[in-house]
Amino acid sequence: MNGAELLIRTARNEGVDVCFANPGTTELPLVAALEETPGMRSVLGLFEGVCTGAADGYARMTGKPALTLLHLGPGFANGVANLHNARRARTPLINLIGDHASWHRAADPPLNMDIESLAGTVSGWQRNVAGPNDAGRDMAEAVAAATAGQIATLIIPHDFQEQAADNPLAGKATFAYAPTDNAAVEAAAFFLRDAAGPVAVILGGRTLLAEGLCQAARIRAATGCDLLAETFAPRVDRAPDLPIAVRIPYFPEQAISLLQRYRAFVLIEAREPVGFFGYAGVPGRFLHDDQERRSVGGNGQDALAVITGLADALDAPTSPPPPERRSLPPVEDGPLTVQNMGHILARHQPDNAIIINEGVTSGRAYGELANHAAPHTMLTLNGGSIGWGIPQAVGAAVACPDRPVIALQADGSGLYTVQGLWTQAREQLNVTTLIAANRRYQILEAEMDRAGMPVDASGRGLTALDNPPVDWVSVAHGFGVPAARVETGQDLRHELLRSLAEPGPHLIEMTLSQP
Amino acid sequence: MNGAELLIRTARNEGVDVCFANPGTTELPLVAALEETPGMRSVLGLFEGVCTGAADGYARMTGKPALTLLHLGPGFANGVANLHNARRARTPLINLIGDHASWHRAADPPLNMDIESLAGTVSGWQRNVAGPNDAGRDMAEAVAAATAGQIATLIIPHDFQEQAADNPLAGKATFAYAPTDNAAVEAAAFFLRDAAGPVAVILGGRTLLAEGLCQAARIRAATGCDLLAETFAPRVDRAPDLPIAVRIPYFPEQAISLLQRYRAFVLIEAREPVGFFGYAGVPGRFLHDDQERRSVGGNGQDALAVITGLADALDAPTSPPPPERRSLPPVEDGPLTVQNMGHILARHQPDNAIIINEGVTSGRAYGELANHAAPHTMLTLNGGSIGWGIPQAVGAAVACPDRPVIALQADGSGLYTVQGLWTQAREQLNVTTLIAANRRYQILEAEMDRAGMPVDASGRGLTALDNPPVDWVSVAHGFGVPAARVETGQDLRHELLRSLAEPGPHLIEMTLSQP
Repeated sequence: MNGAELLIRTARNEGVDVCFANPGTTELPLVAALEETPGMRSVLGLFEGVCTGAADGYARMTGKPALTLLHLGPGFANGVANLHNARRARTPLINLIGDHASWHRAADPPLNMDIESLAGTVSGWQRNVAGPNDAGRDMAEAVAAATAGQIATLIIPHDFQEQAADNPLAGKATFAYAPTDNAAVEAAAFFLRDAAGPVAVILGGRTLLAEGLCQAARIRAATGCDLLAETFAPRVDRAPDLPIAVRIPYFPEQAISLLQRYRAFVLIEAREPVGFFGYAGVPGRFLHDDQERRSVGGNGQDALAVITGLADALDAPTSPPPPERRSLPPVEDGPLTVQNMGHILARHQPDNAIIINEGVTSGRAYGELANHAAPHTMLTLNGGSIGWGIPQAVGAAVACPDRPVIALQADGSGLYTVQGLWTQAREQLNVTTLIAANRRYQILEAEMDRAGMPVDASGRGLTALDNPPVDWVSVAHGFGVPAARVETGQDLRHELLRSLAEPGPHLIEMTLSQP
Repeated sequence: MNGAELLIRTARNEGVDVCFANPGTTELPLVAALEETPGMRSVLGLFEGVCTGAADGYARMTGKPALTLLHLGPGFANGVANLHNARRARTPLINLIGDHASWHRAADPPLNMDIESLAGTVSGWQRNVAGPNDAGRDMAEAVAAATAGQIATLIIPHDFQEQAADNPLAGKATFAYAPTDNAAVEAAAFFLRDAAGPVAVILGGRTLLAEGLCQAARIRAATGCDLLAETFAPRVDRAPDLPIAVRIPYFPEQAISLLQRYRAFVLIEAREPVGFFGYAGVPGRFLHDDQERRSVGGNGQDALAVITGLADALDAPTSPPPPERRSLPPVEDGPLTVQNMGHILARHQPDNAIIINEGVTSGRAYGELANHAAPHTMLTLNGGSIGWGIPQAVGAAVACPDRPVIALQADGSGLYTVQGLWTQAREQLNVTTLIAANRRYQILEAEMDRAGMPVDASGRGLTALDNPPVDWVSVAHGFGVPAARVETGQDLRHELLRSLAEPGPHLIEMTLSQP
């Protein structure tokens, strides 16, 4: 057994069974070990941002650490943007990087760079493996570190991968949540019971999984509070028996308008709402000083234990009545707009779908309607770094082969990591990608409009993507993904149902009419 | 005038006239300033790696600092791989990053990350602009820092871009090379004259420009030395009246076999040759201890002054006879191979072309023949971070609109930054991209073969790109670039000549037969 085999077998032993990989020469012993280790599956991405985004999606859906394999500093750098998103989502994720042979690094060969500093920008835990015999222990510790909800990065020089390792497999990693701060939970219960005036509970992190939302429903039944959700939650489960947590809006005026209705807040595993950007004359922190607040969860606690503890401390009923749901508006035919696109998707999404929403400007109408759609899981972009959706869909579909994945994707964002379509084709993943093709960076035009800046209408400016228009159908075909273009509601419905009925990936380019 | 305008006008005043940009909300005042500043052209990339690679190509061809505009930490991260290549090429390049408003950063909004540490992994100089009035001075100093042959990164918070700036434009940046170390040059001349046994001069950096090669020819005429070139040179000019500098091979056995012929070396602006990777049992440094060597240049000196000084110190003739050149081998028709592809390109490339060689395994046959082809400039991948060629072609074509650009591109590498084709279409750049489609990471398979590892022939392994095969013609069409697929020598010749005759970008997918 060599260092690479010790490392990969330890990972397998810890329950890691997929590696999202784009290796190079300094990772070849790891590649061999991946191929030789029973039960380990390697998924190739044509670009590292595809691997890291896919790992994020995989971990969000399985709840266990995902693994990537990246080539040296530049390969890691290509993965940083989606690692940033994963970090913000507190996704458990382990990066493996091969380094130059330990004796060769001082020669400063062309690909040499400061991997440690680079890894430090996104990693909560990182280590350089110091020898082949350390590979097992280091991997086990990486698994434990990642399980706590952070990025763990392990750098192993090429020679240590090749050299013989005498140590046996490391024992299982020991991970435990921090003890629940029961005093804080009791205090929050007291605060909720005693609050004068309207109160909102802001839910974040794992409290938005089905199990957490059941507890949130109990808390609401006991206190009459409103339930809000962080603007960008890693994962939200939705079903008729789960309460609707109202998403705090993206733009500050809308967020402040919602939040100012409340006299007090309890935040569970959630951060205080702040502006996505800072605008002159607009508060960056959305809560006023006179709005009281209590926070519970965080600091390594188990969010599900915290929210259950809070519901119990309130003596909340165990089975509160299910929420009322609106019926969805009728679907409109005719030219596709952001509105009827959202209606059609909400009405026709199959049971148990995983919805990946990187619609940016186009995904909002759908986002609200989705509360009333068939049961599904929604994944959103936590870190704001675009180019997340196509890779995320790869990982979610690998994690859940029996669930349909629908990726609502902005055209601008999709172009950052478009190579991910190829992995969808190679792995024959059940992903339907809906491209909302407005052929512009519309979020930027909206921001320019906010700032009173003129938007260049010539198609030559830095927000226009229509010269030439990207032909998504052709691009998708190039990567082996069947694709169609639609311009009307009836065509979208037809293509969507067809895509969902056929196995493997599909892409639908939706030409959107303004507005 | 606001901070953004002061900054951009200063850049324009310093001779910067193109910005390769992928901005976001925190860069909008800079976008407005770019659009309003006369003589400033913005070139949009759909991914930041396209912008940084294009800036590298632009600076290599113009010799002056190139400018990028990138969005916060994640946008910068997406550009790091090609910045690494630019750093290794000592390319003068300035990155502009907008940051969150200075007062908002403490709120840690979703896109917040440690930009300083990230920038530090590739930047030789970096600064956070501390207020709107500093923007001009900081930009002028960034220009000076970049001109010295390094990456300069300027981070300016959004509020300082928007706020009024009272300072006038900063004065012109003062940049001067370090004084030439004449004693070292004299010593190298003495060493060259006195060396017993065969001597080679290893040329690096700017000594491989036409002006430097003219001096190298003089040195050879005076001393009888051989001329070698660094394996990865930023830019090599080639013409019948310029000497041929033999490229040090990539694989260590071949490099060592070449280098062991010499008893002594003079390195001019060149680093000692080292292995691209460290292999067990193979030296990582290629020169033996008993091979004497002298280095001149570096440390901020003007490489062209150094090499001229050395030729003068040798009393070398001012006009040595031109080198003998081989006639190119006859072009072969029939199925395309790496060999006849190289022959066809070398024979048919037009005068004065810029050749971008990211052929990896497929570009080597061409690389040797190119010494005997029509006059051209060759750009190669210095830092080894693939996904460089398509963006590099963008920048070279923007820099030299009157020169045809031919990008010889590996299919694996090309897929990292394939979005660059769209910018070629948008700007109607005269780029012909030749995709050497072997549908595998062949360099990795070669490395596996070296290491005695079996290569998975199933098409499922981590080196196979044939399942599904990427249809480059379809992808190119999707991005608005006319494209064709060729399988024979005669078809390649036909399509190559047609592409070169028509304005705007073209792509030719070359299906390669084995071998």
